[in-house]
Amino acid sequence: MPARIPILKLYNCLLVSIQWELDDQTALHFQEHLLQKLHETEASGVVIDLTSVDIIDSFIAKVLGDVISMSKLMGAKVVLTGIQPAVAITLVELGIHLQDVQTALDLEKGLETLQRELGE
Amino acid sequence: MPARIPILKLYNCLLVSIQWELDDQTALHFQEHLLQKLHETEASGVVIDLTSVDIIDSFIAKVLGDVISMSKLMGAKVVLTGIQPAVAITLVELGIHLQDVQTALDLEKGLETLQRELGE
Repeated sequence: MPARIPILKLYNCLLVSIQWELDDQTALHFQEHLLQKLHETEASGVVIDLTSVDIIDSFIAKVLGDVISMSKLMGAKVVLTGIQPAVAITLVELGIHLQDVQTALDLEKGLETLQRELGE
Repeated sequence: MPARIPILKLYNCLLVSIQWELDDQTALHFQEHLLQKLHETEASGVVIDLTSVDIIDSFIAKVLGDVISMSKLMGAKVVLTGIQPAVAITLVELGIHLQDVQTALDLEKGLETLQRELGE
């Protein structure tokens, strides 16, 4: 069984903190779990915190990009927080610019950005 | 390697959501990790959310009671949230009353309780 990444619901947002390197199975499971949770909770925003992620590969980057697009389709805004230098370098070198994605320095700022965007 | 439980820092609090049944190793690892994180982040409160925990055994209940006492020794207030009926029954039947522990219905209310207690 792949490890599960807990998804917390706080106010109208979901919070996810990825605190270790994901393997492919875990990443796919996370994608499914997050979308299901969005559906269940009717949350209007998601903060994905990558502070503790030092390294990212092309598959995980793609899954992350996909989950952001999927969440948008489901009507939720996504903010990525805590992207480390090495991860930013890898993403851009892989051609994954995540251009339409809001980012913020840390979880607090991510939540603030979301609440502002959601107009609350 | 035991599964790790992510610990999120939000404002001056740590948030932990336990979303599956803990095995003994994971529980002990969580205890150590939480105390270390308290030390690192100098957080003054901890919310431990048990919403998704359906069942608890005596060992896990003891570890949970211990981690609350230890956090208090380190100067942090702890709030437990989302304790389910079956878990409450087990805790009391095991003689673990967690009398000095604040509880709240869910994560939002737990955070509110903490912020009020911490006078912010």
